[in-house]
Amino acid sequence: MASVYHSMSDADLDRELAQLEAQGRALREKHLALDMARGKPSPEQTALSRPMLDLLTSATDLTDGSVPVDNYFAPDGLPSARELAAELIGVDPGNVIVNGSSSLNLMHDLVAHAFAIGVCGNTPWCQQGRVKFLCPSPGYDRHFTVTAHYGIENIPIPMAPDGPDMDEVCRLVEMDPQVKGIWCVPKYSNPQGYTYSDETVRRFAALNPAAPDFRIFWDNAYAVHDLYDEGDRLLNIFDVLAEAGGRDLVYEFASTAKVTFPGSGMAWVAASDTDIADIRAHFAAMRVCPEKISQLAHAAFLRDAAGVRAHMRKHADIARPRFELVERKLAEGLDGLGIASWTHPRGGYFVLFNGPEGTAMAIVALAKELGVTLTGAGATWPYGADPRDSDIRIAPTFPSLEALGQALDVFVCAVKLVCARMERGSRV
Amino acid sequence: MASVYHSMSDADLDRELAQLEAQGRALREKHLALDMARGKPSPEQTALSRPMLDLLTSATDLTDGSVPVDNYFAPDGLPSARELAAELIGVDPGNVIVNGSSSLNLMHDLVAHAFAIGVCGNTPWCQQGRVKFLCPSPGYDRHFTVTAHYGIENIPIPMAPDGPDMDEVCRLVEMDPQVKGIWCVPKYSNPQGYTYSDETVRRFAALNPAAPDFRIFWDNAYAVHDLYDEGDRLLNIFDVLAEAGGRDLVYEFASTAKVTFPGSGMAWVAASDTDIADIRAHFAAMRVCPEKISQLAHAAFLRDAAGVRAHMRKHADIARPRFELVERKLAEGLDGLGIASWTHPRGGYFVLFNGPEGTAMAIVALAKELGVTLTGAGATWPYGADPRDSDIRIAPTFPSLEALGQALDVFVCAVKLVCARMERGSRV
Repeated sequence: MASVYHSMSDADLDRELAQLEAQGRALREKHLALDMARGKPSPEQTALSRPMLDLLTSATDLTDGSVPVDNYFAPDGLPSARELAAELIGVDPGNVIVNGSSSLNLMHDLVAHAFAIGVCGNTPWCQQGRVKFLCPSPGYDRHFTVTAHYGIENIPIPMAPDGPDMDEVCRLVEMDPQVKGIWCVPKYSNPQGYTYSDETVRRFAALNPAAPDFRIFWDNAYAVHDLYDEGDRLLNIFDVLAEAGGRDLVYEFASTAKVTFPGSGMAWVAASDTDIADIRAHFAAMRVCPEKISQLAHAAFLRDAAGVRAHMRKHADIARPRFELVERKLAEGLDGLGIASWTHPRGGYFVLFNGPEGTAMAIVALAKELGVTLTGAGATWPYGADPRDSDIRIAPTFPSLEALGQALDVFVCAVKLVCARMERGSRV
Repeated sequence: MASVYHSMSDADLDRELAQLEAQGRALREKHLALDMARGKPSPEQTALSRPMLDLLTSATDLTDGSVPVDNYFAPDGLPSARELAAELIGVDPGNVIVNGSSSLNLMHDLVAHAFAIGVCGNTPWCQQGRVKFLCPSPGYDRHFTVTAHYGIENIPIPMAPDGPDMDEVCRLVEMDPQVKGIWCVPKYSNPQGYTYSDETVRRFAALNPAAPDFRIFWDNAYAVHDLYDEGDRLLNIFDVLAEAGGRDLVYEFASTAKVTFPGSGMAWVAASDTDIADIRAHFAAMRVCPEKISQLAHAAFLRDAAGVRAHMRKHADIARPRFELVERKLAEGLDGLGIASWTHPRGGYFVLFNGPEGTAMAIVALAKELGVTLTGAGATWPYGADPRDSDIRIAPTFPSLEALGQALDVFVCAVKLVCARMERGSRV
C-alpha cells in the first residue's frame, strides 16, 4: 500500500507536515514521562498475588509430602511445585526441575553448561570452534544476549504468523553441525504475539539435527497468558516427540514471573529423561538445593492448572483493555495511511509495530523527545541490528490505561511525523 | 603418642578386642539409624526463623525505599538486603550483590564466569590450558566439586589451626600463572572449625599472584555462627586490602542459609569496585533480577547485624550443647588411648576427627554397619582422596541431643574397634 504522504501534492504535504509539527510541539509542551518499553505487569496485576503472602505463617506445616521445606532437601524442587509446573506445560513431574525465580536464568545455565561442560557428555561448545544459535527475529533481546555473551553467533531467522521459517530452520539445523540451538517463544511470541502452528511444532519435533548436542530452547513464557477465554492453542511439543518415539531435543522453560511476582516467581525446565538427568547432574555441582519456601507458597496459592487459569483470567481483565486500546489508537491514528502495520495478539505481553523501512530508530527517538520511552529500535534483533529498521516493540501492560492512551497518541504522532518528514525529505 | 593397643600384650589385646566386639554386637542389635553426616541445622534451629513468615502479608508495603519489590527491578538486590549483607561482612553496600538463596551457587557462577567468559576481560580459563585451584584440605567437598566439574585441577594445601600453609600458598600463587584461585572458609573452617589468624589474612591480602585473573574465593559461610558469646575474630580481608591500596583479589561470599532457612536464605558476594562491575555485567546476561520477596522478608526479620547476632545466640543455645556433647563423648571414650585427636571449634558446623593413618574408611564403614551415617571418608579432600585416610568430619547439629549421644557412642566404639583390630592384624 502506498503511503498517503507519497500521494500528496507538495502543498498538501507541507500543510500536513505543519499540522503534525504543531501537534508535536503541543505534546512536547506537556512534558510527559511515559513508558511503553518494558514487558512488566502493572501494579494492579502484581497486587492480584498479594494474598499469596498470607498463606505461609509461623504456624504453617513446613513439609511438602514427606519433604522438609525449611532445610536442605529436594534438589529438583518440592513435589507440589513440580506437579504444578508439570501440569501447566503437560509433562510428567519427573521430567521437571523447579529451580529459582528466573527461567531466563535456567536458560542461561543450560547454555553455559553446554558451552563449558557439554550436553550429555558431548564436547563442550567452547572446544568446538565458533558455534551458532538460530534466532527467530524479531525476538526476545535477553535470549540473544545470553548466546552473544558466550560468543555464540546469533543467526536471524524470519518469523511469520505461524512461527519461524521452518524451511530455513531445517536447512541450517540439519546441514550445519555448528548450529547448536534455537531460541523459541512458541506461544504469544515476544514481540509479535504469534503462536506457532501445529505444523510448525511438528516440524520442530521432526528435526534431525546435524549436531548431537543441538537443543531447542522452548521458552513457553506465555503458556497461560491468554487475554481472552479462548486463547491460542499451542501443540505440546513433548507429546509430538513422544509420538515419534521420543528424543533428546527440547528444553522447555516456563515460570510464574508474570503469574505472581516478576523476579520472584518460580521457574522450571522440562526435558527428556536423559536430558533431565544431565541437567540434574550439572545443577548438583551448582547448588545444594533450590529456594523452597517460595515454591511452597506458590503451590499453596496457585494449587493446580485450573487455579492458575482462574488467576490468569484476573490478569487478562486488567491487561486486555490495554491491548485493545493499542489496537484502537493505532487503528484510529494510522489505518488507511499506508505507512504501518502491527500485530493483533490474543495474549502475551507485546505488540509488534512495523513502520516503513528506515523509520524505527527515528520514531523511537522522536517519541522519546515527546516524552514516551519505547523499547530501543533494533533491540529485538540479534546484535541490535534490525536490517529494515522498521520494527518497534510496544509493551502496553505496565502503564495505567490513561497513561497508555497518552503514550499511544504520542506514538501515533511520532510515526506520522517521521513518515511525513521522510517523504518531504525525499522530494528535496 | 603411642596407641594404647600397641602397648598391650597379646592376651590383653585379645581380651580388649573381645569386649569391643561384644559392644559392637550389642549396638548392632539396636538397629539404630542415626546421621552425623550433614551440616544442617536441626529442626529446632530452623523453627527459630518461623516468625519471619509472619512479616509479609497481603497488606505489606512492597517497596524497599523507592524500589518496588513485586516487579522486575534492583538487579543487585534490594537496598535493605544489600545493607544488611554489607554490614554483616564489613563492606560498603555498593560492593555487594545479593542474589538468590545459595552462596555456593554464586561461587559456582563466578568459577563458570571465569572459565567461560574471563575475569575482568582476561582470557577465559577454558582457553588457558589446564588451570589450577588451591584447596586447603581437608575442606568443603562442594567447593572442590565445583572446580573439578570444570576440569580445573584441585591441589590440596595443608591446613593448620591458623589457616592454610601460607608459604605453600604464596609459592604456588606467585610462581604459577595457571593457579587461578583458592577456596577458603576463613572462619570456623569446614571441617576443622579453625579461624584464620590475622597473620594468615594479611598474607592473603598481600599475595602477588602470577595470574591477573587469580581470585581468592573467601567463603565466609560461618561469619556469624559463634557458639559462645566470645566468638573467634576474623580480620576483615577487605580492610587489610584497603590499607594496602586495594586490589581486585577477593570474592567474599556469605548467606543466611544457616541463619534462617537452609536453601531458602539470601546469598551475596562482595568484591572490589572493578570486580563487582565485572560480576554485575555477567549477572545482567544471566537474569533480569534476583528474587526480592525473600530479601524483603529477611531484611524485615533480621534488620541489621545486631539483629542477626541476637538471632544467632538462639542458634548457639541449641547447637552448643551438641558440640559440647561431641567433646565430652570423644574425651570420655578416647582420651589417653593415643589413637585419635579432634578439633575443638567455637563455632561453625563441624568437628574434624583425626584417627590413625589408614583407619578413616574402616571407621566410617563400621559406624554405618552399627547404624550411624557419617560423612564419607575422604569426602573432605579433593577427588575424595585423603592421603592418610585418617580424617572424619563430624556434623553434630542435625540430630537431637539424645540421638547424637547414641551416635557418638557408636562412633567411639567403631574407632576403638578398628584400631584394636588393626593392631591385632599387625601382629599376625
